[in-house]
Amino acid sequence: MNRKIIEPKTLPGFRDFLPESMMPREWLMETARRTFRSWGFAPIDTPTLEFLEILTGKGSEETDRQMYHFVDNGGRSVGMRFDLTVPLARFVAQHYGKLGMPFRRYHIGTVWRGERQQAGRYREFIQADFDTIGTTSVLSDAETALVIHDLIRALGIERFVIRINNRKLLNGMLDQFGLRDRSAQVLRAVDKLDKAGGTAPVADELRASGIADGQIANILEMVALKGTNPQVLERLETLSGNNELAGQGLAELRELDSLVKSSGANPANFRIDPSIARGLDYYTGSVFETILEDLPGIGSVCSGGRYDNLAGLYTKQELPGIGASLGLDRMLTALETLGLLPASRTPADVLIVNFGQEHSGRYLAIAGDIRSTGLHVEVYPDARKLAAQFKYADHRGHKACVVAGGDELEKGLVRIKWMESGQQDDVPIDSVARTLADILAQKS
Amino acid sequence: MNRKIIEPKTLPGFRDFLPESMMPREWLMETARRTFRSWGFAPIDTPTLEFLEILTGKGSEETDRQMYHFVDNGGRSVGMRFDLTVPLARFVAQHYGKLGMPFRRYHIGTVWRGERQQAGRYREFIQADFDTIGTTSVLSDAETALVIHDLIRALGIERFVIRINNRKLLNGMLDQFGLRDRSAQVLRAVDKLDKAGGTAPVADELRASGIADGQIANILEMVALKGTNPQVLERLETLSGNNELAGQGLAELRELDSLVKSSGANPANFRIDPSIARGLDYYTGSVFETILEDLPGIGSVCSGGRYDNLAGLYTKQELPGIGASLGLDRMLTALETLGLLPASRTPADVLIVNFGQEHSGRYLAIAGDIRSTGLHVEVYPDARKLAAQFKYADHRGHKACVVAGGDELEKGLVRIKWMESGQQDDVPIDSVARTLADILAQKS
Repeated sequence: MNRKIIEPKTLPGFRDFLPESMMPREWLMETARRTFRSWGFAPIDTPTLEFLEILTGKGSEETDRQMYHFVDNGGRSVGMRFDLTVPLARFVAQHYGKLGMPFRRYHIGTVWRGERQQAGRYREFIQADFDTIGTTSVLSDAETALVIHDLIRALGIERFVIRINNRKLLNGMLDQFGLRDRSAQVLRAVDKLDKAGGTAPVADELRASGIADGQIANILEMVALKGTNPQVLERLETLSGNNELAGQGLAELRELDSLVKSSGANPANFRIDPSIARGLDYYTGSVFETILEDLPGIGSVCSGGRYDNLAGLYTKQELPGIGASLGLDRMLTALETLGLLPASRTPADVLIVNFGQEHSGRYLAIAGDIRSTGLHVEVYPDARKLAAQFKYADHRGHKACVVAGGDELEKGLVRIKWMESGQQDDVPIDSVARTLADILAQKS
Repeated sequence: MNRKIIEPKTLPGFRDFLPESMMPREWLMETARRTFRSWGFAPIDTPTLEFLEILTGKGSEETDRQMYHFVDNGGRSVGMRFDLTVPLARFVAQHYGKLGMPFRRYHIGTVWRGERQQAGRYREFIQADFDTIGTTSVLSDAETALVIHDLIRALGIERFVIRINNRKLLNGMLDQFGLRDRSAQVLRAVDKLDKAGGTAPVADELRASGIADGQIANILEMVALKGTNPQVLERLETLSGNNELAGQGLAELRELDSLVKSSGANPANFRIDPSIARGLDYYTGSVFETILEDLPGIGSVCSGGRYDNLAGLYTKQELPGIGASLGLDRMLTALETLGLLPASRTPADVLIVNFGQEHSGRYLAIAGDIRSTGLHVEVYPDARKLAAQFKYADHRGHKACVVAGGDELEKGLVRIKWMESGQQDDVPIDSVARTLADILAQKS
């Protein structure tokens, strides 16, 4: 058949994941699921396509513009989800009676945004969200921070800070400074705070908005507060005078700080930071972001906060809640940069080298023995040259090869070749599984 | 704010998954991933959107008609993938040099088909595929059947049959019967064989196609062959005369049967069945389907086969391979019908009842202790009435509640309430984690 070849390529902004990048992604998602579950969060899923009216006008103008949408074969206007929060709101409104409150869910799913192309920005990516809905308890705020703590540690990272603030405190302080009607400009300016370089960009932007020097001084003092959590809380109390809203925010921050300490988590990983704002709308209480101390430049790897009303567009039921979202791509970049990802192209620890079809049954039986110890095993399917099979194992990243031709099998022996050291050991067939399991357990 | 409420609803043919249905789905996918990995299959992922020209004309007319496709904001014609095989072909052609052969991959992903609506048919569903590419070794055919075997057993099912046939045998037999140019009609008729009710529907369809009675008798004898695998193989050898293609198919079946027996798997789960055809095109060697003996009516839960050339549309590289696909929805229906799915709405084994905010720190600490044993724990966020919290635990399906008010905590005691029996035990706080872990381990 003489057919034109179609060039195999992916759409701009979309990615293939080869095993070497997919294995870490699966590990990260599995670690997230395990952590979420251990705190009682249950998984849900929602369709990737929704009626367009469910999605439009729910995020920002930008998300509306970036949304993938079309008319389906049945003439329905449909859109592809651009986050997991809007579907969650629709989901909770639709199934409220069945779900029961409080409702703790996690959702790991793909979302799409037709972003302008730039480095590190993709049009298809995975989010991992968890939320506790139907309670205003500060205990849930503390648990949200603690889940982030457990998740980051489960990934092997110890040097990180969960920065915690409270929007009531922030809004109350602005009120106290006589800036209640300028909060949009102030919060936008505060978001520009360069954690390394200081407050200058914030001051410039505030001045450009026509805010008075005395007010700027107040704001800068607040956002630059440093010290232990009790020191920062004490200073905030003085700065806030007796503003009621700020007082509520402070009380919540105090309770959260105390709960985190009682929990047994490492207090060094939690820091009250009055400069955290997390955008303009939506959040109404605690807000979080998570900075890796060895990679502060990549920004927050896990962020979230408390909201008063999740699903007001779809139900009259008021649904307060709190949640956070892990950015999978950013976290993977971080783990790779920190050298915390194993480099391998195969989940198989062991490759059984193939000396000929007549031995295939023996190889399958040996592989089954080794597999029964919990190790992952691959049998090379063809009797190619030994050098080619070792080259394959090197490229893939198997940790050991089992080498047994007719002579060895007749003697009841196999040779184990350890790929990293090149060392070779001859062992009886009936102890090869145990030997591999013991030695590979020591190495990992 | 007086805003119009948008009715929260999903598109027809699309589904929300509440925790009670999502937890089994996650368990099934994790079991599949674990099984695939243990045989050395590595995960990949591909974009859900592809250039339309990659997807059109690659499946059947039906898949073309059912495909979701549209023009994106950049004016590109794009389609949503309708299976994982076409993306695999494009992927392997595109990354051939990097991948190295043989290449064993699994891919668990969502696919979309705008099916006409009918019971049990969805427009969005998940497939779990695994393939070995770049080898013609029968060892890989045997491994494919063995992976299916391990996966179904890992799901707790022992009564199942993997039906195995070979397209070379089938085509050679048709040649032998003088029906080489009628194979499309014959295979279509053979697919109608009612495994319970007999050969009558096949005979009717063959007669309607104008096939002679003698030829029909030959076909019916072949497809109705029963007995042990060696008996069936022997009978097939006689029937096939000395047709060369049939002889190759028979040799492959014999080798596959022998390899499966050597592997240590249960031979009762593998049956050579000359009636299995698996569609008209594409497959060229071994073919498989998997029937649950207690639910034969639901059809094959895992099917696949060998092909000569995976990616001929995208590359001149010839890529033989073999693979199979697990139908997630069908398997979940089966597991539910067989009573193999636990009924629960939470991953949390334990609920800690809340008697007041002043104890929240203690509850978090106790939860942390219990969590460190590997159990999953939830703290109720608000100090609601005890009856309401127990009702919540009943609805969710927690196995035990930890009950501790101020008095108990002062005495250093907590009460464990076992939700199924209603039994209550008082235990010292510092042994509650161990007690829960020990007793729940016995129960599971």
